[in-house]
Amino acid sequence: MEELQPTERTRLKRLPQRGSFDRETVYRIIDTALFCHVGFVHNDAPFVVPTLHVRIGARLYVHGSAASRMLRTAAGGVPLCVTVTHVDGLVLARSAFHHSINYRSAVILGVAQEVTDPDAKLRVLHALVEHVVPGRWQDARPPHPKELAATSVLGLPITEASAKIRPGGPGDDAEDYALPIWAGVIPLKMVTGAPVADERLMGGVKVPEYVANYLLPDARRDPQWQRGWNEPSVTT
Amino acid sequence: MEELQPTERTRLKRLPQRGSFDRETVYRIIDTALFCHVGFVHNDAPFVVPTLHVRIGARLYVHGSAASRMLRTAAGGVPLCVTVTHVDGLVLARSAFHHSINYRSAVILGVAQEVTDPDAKLRVLHALVEHVVPGRWQDARPPHPKELAATSVLGLPITEASAKIRPGGPGDDAEDYALPIWAGVIPLKMVTGAPVADERLMGGVKVPEYVANYLLPDARRDPQWQRGWNEPSVTT
Repeated sequence: MEELQPTERTRLKRLPQRGSFDRETVYRIIDTALFCHVGFVHNDAPFVVPTLHVRIGARLYVHGSAASRMLRTAAGGVPLCVTVTHVDGLVLARSAFHHSINYRSAVILGVAQEVTDPDAKLRVLHALVEHVVPGRWQDARPPHPKELAATSVLGLPITEASAKIRPGGPGDDAEDYALPIWAGVIPLKMVTGAPVADERLMGGVKVPEYVANYLLPDARRDPQWQRGWNEPSVTT
Repeated sequence: MEELQPTERTRLKRLPQRGSFDRETVYRIIDTALFCHVGFVHNDAPFVVPTLHVRIGARLYVHGSAASRMLRTAAGGVPLCVTVTHVDGLVLARSAFHHSINYRSAVILGVAQEVTDPDAKLRVLHALVEHVVPGRWQDARPPHPKELAATSVLGLPITEASAKIRPGGPGDDAEDYALPIWAGVIPLKMVTGAPVADERLMGGVKVPEYVANYLLPDARRDPQWQRGWNEPSVTT
């Protein structure tokens, strides 16, 4: 897979070793996240909105109500910044200054195009639902044409993009390693709880296998994800 | 606590029942999150950057390297949008259209001011470290004047702000309740793993109590948080 071309806007000025223009790395960060934050400019002011996303090929798609400010603004062909963030741990260094966060993040800059063809829209919505809950699309009642019309879908080409990853333990100043201060990482991750059925569920409907054995994208793509993960220390 | 004043920019046009201008609600969403996404405009383009935050009174503070684009841009008195997002669950409705996400989010719009006084900066950094890991500040080696100078701190007044919350189960169209389709919620939450000590830890240094019993902000503020939480179904 070819490398992404760095630009003035995506090149890291500080700590460049944390940055990557490897397309596969960017894709992996996108694909292992359920949601992103979309930034856009409206009347000269920035707005940042969390939303679900899915990647198909070299495009990242978001959707929403055709009436929403984000979708109305972004469909007008304005520049967007999509930021995908995984927070993986709290890094406790010996010095307050070197405390940090372990993360994997991707930033995609560009102008999105609205997907207007109903079949193409449906394909994106299908992919979106399957990205969030694989197996769900075939069970759910498909969108009516009216629902499809009320939904806007935007596709952002993944052309100007970069990844930034901070893994591992603390990096302290040489002289601080002699301090008798605990240092290390408190790992963080998103997990699922047991599914909660709707109170109005029709009698006799069982929890589908894809819900009972649901895996978040990080766990789906990486068999190592759950391994070595200890019980949360926060139990009552 | 007085209500926040809605503005054209923070008033919800769609689903206004999900919105809140209650200051306490906004504060709670901010205080139970470790990090936020800061949006700013640079050369007419939006940028969205994840960063840690802490609230002190009616101000939200972020920090970073004085050299970073975000801090350099934002310190120049440009409009910011800070979005804080908790994702609490996947909502599976009977119709694809009504699938949703349970979330709690807050948006703060405004112009940040740089905190330049070293004592004031130190107070914010102290609060920030204590927000992320309560008990840590007294153990860590405090910042040298040089480190303090290399750190920029920005304070954003929480004046133009709102919260948006989507709790509960799916909301389907009346006729869809008769469909034999499973519907409900897959709860999501962030949890901690067992602390991982740095390989270069000085001999004899024990894991501090505040690390061993670390609680994420949501668990800290809400004794209900862990109750009823089942084992992640995703174990190998």
